[in-house]
Amino acid sequence: MTQSPDLIIGIDGGGTSCRAALLFAGRRVEMRGGPANAMRFDEAMGTIAGLLSGLATQAGLPPGALAAARAHVGLAGVMTPDMAARVAAALPMRDVTVTDDQPTTIAGALGAQTGAVAAIGTGSFVGRQSDTGIRVLGGWGLPIGDQASGARLGRRLLEEVMLAIDGLRPHSGLTRAVLADHGGTGAGIVFFSATATAADFATLAPRVVAAAEAGDAVAAALMAEGAGYIAACLTALGHAAGESLCLMGGVGPAYARWLPPGMASGLRAPQGSALDGALILARAEGCP
Amino acid sequence: MTQSPDLIIGIDGGGTSCRAALLFAGRRVEMRGGPANAMRFDEAMGTIAGLLSGLATQAGLPPGALAAARAHVGLAGVMTPDMAARVAAALPMRDVTVTDDQPTTIAGALGAQTGAVAAIGTGSFVGRQSDTGIRVLGGWGLPIGDQASGARLGRRLLEEVMLAIDGLRPHSGLTRAVLADHGGTGAGIVFFSATATAADFATLAPRVVAAAEAGDAVAAALMAEGAGYIAACLTALGHAAGESLCLMGGVGPAYARWLPPGMASGLRAPQGSALDGALILARAEGCP
Repeated sequence: MTQSPDLIIGIDGGGTSCRAALLFAGRRVEMRGGPANAMRFDEAMGTIAGLLSGLATQAGLPPGALAAARAHVGLAGVMTPDMAARVAAALPMRDVTVTDDQPTTIAGALGAQTGAVAAIGTGSFVGRQSDTGIRVLGGWGLPIGDQASGARLGRRLLEEVMLAIDGLRPHSGLTRAVLADHGGTGAGIVFFSATATAADFATLAPRVVAAAEAGDAVAAALMAEGAGYIAACLTALGHAAGESLCLMGGVGPAYARWLPPGMASGLRAPQGSALDGALILARAEGCP
Repeated sequence: MTQSPDLIIGIDGGGTSCRAALLFAGRRVEMRGGPANAMRFDEAMGTIAGLLSGLATQAGLPPGALAAARAHVGLAGVMTPDMAARVAAALPMRDVTVTDDQPTTIAGALGAQTGAVAAIGTGSFVGRQSDTGIRVLGGWGLPIGDQASGARLGRRLLEEVMLAIDGLRPHSGLTRAVLADHGGTGAGIVFFSATATAADFATLAPRVVAAAEAGDAVAAALMAEGAGYIAACLTALGHAAGESLCLMGGVGPAYARWLPPGMASGLRAPQGSALDGALILARAEGCP
């Protein structure tokens, strides 16, 4: 390898903002910029170009110096190898790997440790890092996946309300309360659900979490469903009892009490951010 | 009752077209017009006004004569009692009942018999007619209901494909074929599902039906899920073993082999259409 081992770049980009960090000569400089979702390619590459220029200036390096860095770029919207290759080809760094933001989230949470991450917000994915690398399950979106997500909890709750209206399942305090909030008839819920986005359904997730903790039978069953999916993913990924497990995102920590005890025994706080993860992956991928 | 018992009107309206029939003096005249979905109120009432005028002309009656008829109007989009009252108030007939198109479908299929209907196309509902009237379950739409529908079969199939990609469930011939059709990666299916309508998901239903009949394990499990929902509805509605059961819609008849034998033993072809059902309900509702 001919490039300098002294320049390491990590980038974590999403639909709202993008963060970039440069490690050099024992120092770390960092910047934040606008959106960088790979599905809006030109905007993303413009944001990243601006951040790279800013990092070089902060570090007192000539603009072309970053081409010799090792870099890892984790961008939301990188869904295929083709997309990753397209992003890589548009970057000045010659030694760069590109993924979506799942591996960077996992590497940041776990540092160098073997362990797993369940990232559960509006959407959901479950991943594990070991000495053979990072593997991720899920993250396919509400219509056909994200089985533990806030959006799925909300959608399943409304399905249970309608089944209770039809007398096919029992009502609970939560299903009655949600029905009352929509005017007391199924029609209100049908109107809501016909146009609801994943984010709209996810607004119901905090009520499912709170009701489940208070003993509501329907809510508890939904949390158990989601936890069952997380546990199935962890088992498929080879997660061992007691091994590190980080529950992340707005809903993730709420699943702690619904997981099997062996899995829950490994629970710990994430070590760092997805930007930290991008730096870790940049360094690791530069190693022989 | 002061109105003439000799004029009976039935109307069956939906998003594509509307049919109306008039019974008088032992004759039946019938017309078809444009769309009449109650969610597009003015268009629907315009269509119906035109049909009523045409029926009066065909029958050789003065335009105002139909105000004395007994009528039942079954329109798609009538989701609340308020909506039904608004439609009724806009009609010239003084003795009119308004529902969505579910009761008319059921009454038309069963005539005067006790029995049940499972209407399964893109959406789904299950209903039963007995001497105490008609009761309907389901029909809440894909996001939170329609558990036996073609749309749900398609959405569940894609969910199974993604679970198989992740190693959480076994692949089958059908899941492999669907994956190959979308370019061999999950990304193609995610792109499709992110914007797919109920009708888009339902395009996959014939493949589920055919694969299940050929012994595909995943497809068979999905048909069994749908049939389980239909059976639960029938039980909740009080359907007795051997009692008449009509499977209607593009997908309905495919469930015959997946239903419990006691339920399947009552299978028979529908007696008539939703327009026939509207006439039956108009007459029945006029009875003391």
